[in-house]
Amino acid sequence: MTKDTFYIPRLAIVGVGLIGGSLALALREAGAVGEVIGIGRGLANLEKALELGIVDRITQDAVAGTREADLVFLATPVCKLGEVAAAIIPHLKRGAVITDGGSVKAQVIAAIEPLLRPGVSFVPGHPIAGTEKSGAEAAFATLYHHRRCILTPTQNTESDALEMVERMWRTAGSEVVVMDAEKHDRILAAISHLPHMVAYSLVNAVGSYDRYEENILEYSAGGFRDFTRIASSDPSMWRDIALTNRAALLEMMERFEHFLAELKEDVRSGEGERLYEFFQRSKELRDNIL
Amino acid sequence: MTKDTFYIPRLAIVGVGLIGGSLALALREAGAVGEVIGIGRGLANLEKALELGIVDRITQDAVAGTREADLVFLATPVCKLGEVAAAIIPHLKRGAVITDGGSVKAQVIAAIEPLLRPGVSFVPGHPIAGTEKSGAEAAFATLYHHRRCILTPTQNTESDALEMVERMWRTAGSEVVVMDAEKHDRILAAISHLPHMVAYSLVNAVGSYDRYEENILEYSAGGFRDFTRIASSDPSMWRDIALTNRAALLEMMERFEHFLAELKEDVRSGEGERLYEFFQRSKELRDNIL
Ligand SMILES: NC(=O)c1ccc[n+]([C@@H]2O[C@H](COP(=O)([O-])OP(=O)(O)OC[C@H]3O[C@@H](n4cnc5c(N)ncnc54)[C@H](OP(=O)(O)O)[C@@H]3O)[C@@H](O)[C@H]2O)c1
Ligand SMILES: NC(=O)c1ccc[n+]([C@@H]2O[C@H](COP(=O)([O-])OP(=O)(O)OC[C@H]3O[C@@H](n4cnc5c(N)ncnc54)[C@H](OP(=O)(O)O)[C@@H]3O)[C@@H](O)[C@H]2O)c1
Repeated sequence: MTKDTFYIPRLAIVGVGLIGGSLALALREAGAVGEVIGIGRGLANLEKALELGIVDRITQDAVAGTREADLVFLATPVCKLGEVAAAIIPHLKRGAVITDGGSVKAQVIAAIEPLLRPGVSFVPGHPIAGTEKSGAEAAFATLYHHRRCILTPTQNTESDALEMVERMWRTAGSEVVVMDAEKHDRILAAISHLPHMVAYSLVNAVGSYDRYEENILEYSAGGFRDFTRIASSDPSMWRDIALTNRAALLEMMERFEHFLAELKEDVRSGEGERLYEFFQRSKELRDNIL
Repeated sequence: MTKDTFYIPRLAIVGVGLIGGSLALALREAGAVGEVIGIGRGLANLEKALELGIVDRITQDAVAGTREADLVFLATPVCKLGEVAAAIIPHLKRGAVITDGGSVKAQVIAAIEPLLRPGVSFVPGHPIAGTEKSGAEAAFATLYHHRRCILTPTQNTESDALEMVERMWRTAGSEVVVMDAEKHDRILAAISHLPHMVAYSLVNAVGSYDRYEENILEYSAGGFRDFTRIASSDPSMWRDIALTNRAALLEMMERFEHFLAELKEDVRSGEGERLYEFFQRSKELRDNIL
């Protein structure tokens, strides 16, 4: 093991779902972990994780499972992160580093930082990767390959701990980007949280249209299916995100409403040229991210 | 050739793009056509169509190209359908059948039916299939396989002509559904036209967010890309649809706005349970169409 190789003797994953499980698999595949302990509430999911080789050992006791860990990855739903941190922090060993994968950062920092004590560091993070599936079964080793992972250190974050977590994500295949939590929350509100709200609203609006007896969704072709795939995401995860990134999300929802209202007015008044320009501008923006 | 086999001695395709070109390819592959004549404005696209074996002969003269046709498929942008029909109908041979693939039906019927004369029939249609690509190069023979094609005959539509067009679409691999034009326009407004308006608005709202120097779309992962793929669709096609299905589209845009506003209020007031229910209902509706 050279000095440059990233290696964690004991890694604890609290919440062995898509995000936690995939990190464990990625680090294992890279030979970058000794023992991996999986912590969760439900036994069935933990046993699945064990069976799939995601973790070496499982426990429903978060304190026991993290006590000896060098690195603790919190990957529970966002609203549970503070609770879990409060339970485990008093019992972590000296030098332990906690990091998380929560989709919202300012609120998670506000919940966890006040709980810290000397010798325990916290590095807030969020891998920009995911699918609409959840649970240990959804995890796979390459989820983070060629994805970005955003870390949002605060003035309290120790640089050694930050460096360790950066190296961890690079080892898992990601490009690490560091920014402040507020910026993270606004960018994610725009590119992820707003689209989910829009997709959920769209499916509800269309799926409950009952003017005709048949289910009109049966007429939908590939476009609608792709467009609404994200509306299959876990409702409790999105409830948590909507509750914890409220300000940025409301700002973006209003921004979107404004654009949609402008478009509606052009439809109403039959403004062909303006409609063309609106669609053309959008197509250009979209084609640029292909 | 048994009596039951569908066969068109001479087929004219006006607008050899994704929709027109794919029908030609599908019927050719089924051995269901004699000669296929491709009609368009731009020579480059027509030559491409010839080169790709989509058509046997090309012309920029719609009258000359359709004069001897048994079946004429109009697959130009929606707003051009009436114009093309007006030009060719006086010169079609007795017994000729016209059908179209326009995404909007009531307005197309209003434009074409008054132009008909004895011996020339019109069967309004719309294949529910497509991609975000256009032009002859985008055409492929299996586009219509296992897709629905909606036909919207009126009281003036001859039953023989309707039957012929039904058989044509079945031969191309589609399931034919017959309904009235108004119902078609509302269903399509819901499952296709509204989602496109939403996607275009979303990409514009997010892509023009310039609070930060970098292009925030670069942070978008797979979800955003899939979600917004339909915003890459042809702007002029969507301008035409927005102009010609205005009433149904406005109704659906308002319906959607209502659902989004409801969701926004729940975000604003932090209504966790209501948010969960909203997302859960949407997930159920969405998972049902998987
Ligand atoms: N999915 C995505 O696309 C995505 C992307 C980036 C970040 N994230 C974030 O990553 C985190 C996890 O998301 P995920 O998609 O991996 O969800 P997931 O697949 O549902 O996994 C979450 C896991 O946490 C466990 N858990 C829940 N409450 C717990 C508690 N109090 N103590 C211990 N374990 C608990 C769950 O198991 P039990 O219920 O059995 O305990 C479950 O296995 C969330 O914060 C989310 O915001 C998600
Ligand atoms: N794309 C979809 O997803 C989809 C699905 C179902 C139905 N539709 C409908 O199908 C029709 C065609 O759409 P598409 O996607 O196939 O578009 P496309 O690929 O752009 O093809 C349209 C073709 O029409 C030609 N054209 C335009 N104006 C013309 C005119 N005045 N006379 C003769 N040819 C003309 C164009 O070539 P030139 O410009 O060189 O003339 C082009 O090749 C539209 O009415 C659309 O609403 C589309």
